[in-house]
Amino acid sequence: MSVIDRLVAHAEGYAAEHRDSTPTAEPRLSVAIVVCMDARLSPYAMLGVDEGDAHVIRNAGGIVTADTLRSLAASQHLLGTHSVMVIQHTDCGLSHTTDEAFEQQLRAYTISLPPWALGSFDDLEASIRRSLQLVRSCPFLLHRGDVRGFAFDVESGELNEVV
Amino acid sequence: MSVIDRLVAHAEGYAAEHRDSTPTAEPRLSVAIVVCMDARLSPYAMLGVDEGDAHVIRNAGGIVTADTLRSLAASQHLLGTHSVMVIQHTDCGLSHTTDEAFEQQLRAYTISLPPWALGSFDDLEASIRRSLQLVRSCPFLLHRGDVRGFAFDVESGELNEVV
Repeated sequence: MSVIDRLVAHAEGYAAEHRDSTPTAEPRLSVAIVVCMDARLSPYAMLGVDEGDAHVIRNAGGIVTADTLRSLAASQHLLGTHSVMVIQHTDCGLSHTTDEAFEQQLRAYTISLPPWALGSFDDLEASIRRSLQLVRSCPFLLHRGDVRGFAFDVESGELNEVV
Repeated sequence: MSVIDRLVAHAEGYAAEHRDSTPTAEPRLSVAIVVCMDARLSPYAMLGVDEGDAHVIRNAGGIVTADTLRSLAASQHLLGTHSVMVIQHTDCGLSHTTDEAFEQQLRAYTISLPPWALGSFDDLEASIRRSLQLVRSCPFLLHRGDVRGFAFDVESGELNEVV
C-alpha cells in the first residue's frame, strides 16, 4: 500500500466526522496564518486552531512571496480575515543552504534554472521582518494593521514574537 | 485579548508537548501535500497525518503556482520527499469569482493591479488536472512519478481522486 493510498484510506473514515461539523468558509477567528511547510510544525496543535477557525498558508520557509500575497488578498477580500500571523522557525531547510548552492544542486539535473530563487536565509529574525514588511506594504490587502511575526524554536517548542 | 494573543497563549502550553516528540526535519512519510488554505480543511485530521509525517504546502485554491514548485523543489532536493498529493475542494472561494471580477474588486482600493492573477477556476477537476500537469512537467523536481490529485467535497467530507 503506497503512502498516498494510506492517507486516502484514512480520509474515508473522516468523511462522517467532517459532515457532523459544519464550519463556514469564512474563518471563525478572521485570521490568516502564514507558516513554513516543515513537517515538525502543526499550526493546529501549536495554536489550538480547529477546523473552521483560520486560513493556513504554507510554503518552504513560511516566507512571504507573491503567492502568499495572492492568498492573503483572497483571504481578506473574499473571506473576511483581517489579522495576519507569520511563523518561521529555527533549523529551517532554507537556512542550511544558499540560493546559489541550491541552484548548483539543480544544475546537476537540468540545464535550465527556475524562474524563482529558493529564498534561503541565514538570519531568522531578519527573514521574519522582511516578510512582515512585505505584508504591511502590500497595496492589495484590506487590513495591514494586525500583522505579527513569530519565530518557533523547534528545540524548545517556544513561539517568540519578533518585533 | 486579540485573536493572535489567544493563539500565542495556547502555544505556551504547547512547548513542553512539542519537546517530548522529536521528529526530524525529513518527513517520515516522504510526502508533500499541496492543499487549499480553506479553514474547513485540516489535512492532519483528514489524512491522519501527525507532526513529522509530511510537508504541508497551502495557498488560496491549493493550485500549483511557481511558489508551490519552489516549495516542492526544496521538499525533494533538501528533505527527501518523493510523493506529491494535490487536494482542492468544492465550494472554494476561487470558484465563486473570476480573475476579472477580483481585479475589479481590487481597483476599488488601489490604482495599480497585482503582478499575479487570482487563479480562479470554474471546473474543479480541470483545475486539479492542470496542477498535476504543472508538477509532472516541472524539470526542477527529482520525483514526478507518484503525483496524485484529489477533490475534497466539503459537504460530504469525501475525498475523491481525479485521474
